Amino acid sequence: MNSIDISWPITPDMTAYKNKKRVQIEQIKTMEHDQVRETVLHLGSHAGTHVDAPAHFMHNGDLYDVLSISLFIGQCVVLDLMHIQDHITAQDLQSYTIPEKSIVLLKTSNSFLSATAPFNDLFVYLDASGADYLIKKHIKSVGIDYLGIERNQPNHETHITLMQHGIGIIEGLRLQHVTAGAYMLYCLPLAMVGTEASPARAILVQ
Amino acid sequence: MNSIDISWPITPDMTAYKNKKRVQIEQIKTMEHDQVRETVLHLGSHAGTHVDAPAHFMHNGDLYDVLSISLFIGQCVVLDLMHIQDHITAQDLQSYTIPEKSIVLLKTSNSFLSATAPFNDLFVYLDASGADYLIKKHIKSVGIDYLGIERNQPNHETHITLMQHGIGIIEGLRLQHVTAGAYMLYCLPLAMVGTEASPARAILVQ
Repeated sequence: MNSIDISWPITPDMTAYKNKKRVQIEQIKTMEHDQVRETVLHLGSHAGTHVDAPAHFMHNGDLYDVLSISLFIGQCVVLDLMHIQDHITAQDLQSYTIPEKSIVLLKTSNSFLSATAPFNDLFVYLDASGADYLIKKHIKSVGIDYLGIERNQPNHETHITLMQHGIGIIEGLRLQHVTAGAYMLYCLPLAMVGTEASPARAILVQ
Repeated sequence: MNSIDISWPITPDMTAYKNKKRVQIEQIKTMEHDQVRETVLHLGSHAGTHVDAPAHFMHNGDLYDVLSISLFIGQCVVLDLMHIQDHITAQDLQSYTIPEKSIVLLKTSNSFLSATAPFNDLFVYLDASGADYLIKKHIKSVGIDYLGIERNQPNHETHITLMQHGIGIIEGLRLQHVTAGAYMLYCLPLAMVGTEASPARAILVQ
């Protein structure tokens, strides 16, 4: 089985949202002193590839462990939106075939930024009209190839619209090497309990 | 698609190897103060469900990111070894059908320990003869339902034998609710770079 890894490599120098670097890999045992290597990982729950739960932005939103993992596994379409300059609207999405219950991955020029570049606050994002359009298409989840699905919109309107409709949100994908089209997505977040998000590993299978 | 989650829930009070508790969930932004929830995770790379790389115990062993993710994805057999009292030997494995290139998951009485119980240093483990037997069966990876695949054997002989033969090692599975038989396994470790192990999420698909 051929799988395509679409995850953001986790390193201390990886791009961080608004440049708040929170990844540390702490070596607590070394071969020289302990005859074993062992590390402790320190990372933000929104580092690299991750899923957001409604509790991230909503007062009474579900925590991540209440979500069904099936939100992030299943039939998936990767849309080529490389031509979009600033943000993705409903109109931009109208020419694509988007099956019901699918997971929609937005491939933009973001994927061509280096994985360790300084944070680009002009990244291509999904606006509220685009989120509304996807909700009307009855999708299951949406993923984007940057550390946020919106920039700094008032009241986080893209997030809130999606969360209110139970749509899963995957951020921090890497899609540079992926051809637009249909795949199976397996995006598996860690089995975190009681958090508003979780780091995840994501692969596509043809 | 029905998936069965076989991952160890990650919480500060989860069972830790030799009771060295290293999981902390640090709330850095709260709804009350910041209108957003955000956490930083602190966890050992061997917390709960995880994969070991040869660099864990071998001087010149590969780090985790050198391993192919395909080691942890594919055809899988769950073996019912609930009757084993102490350790699994070659002889114990002889009555099972173990296909070439499969991923073998060992379901033992370990799965019936609570996920937050104190560390049980008498957990059922795979001895070196059992590891040798699985190597001769040309398996791809082996997984066990406790935080180690061996206890404290001299020179980590089970680990080293498996690692020398390029066999993947998955530890910290939870199999209480899984019926023995054939499945597809998707065990996706985080995209860690430069570590000797990585936490993972694992699901079975029928």
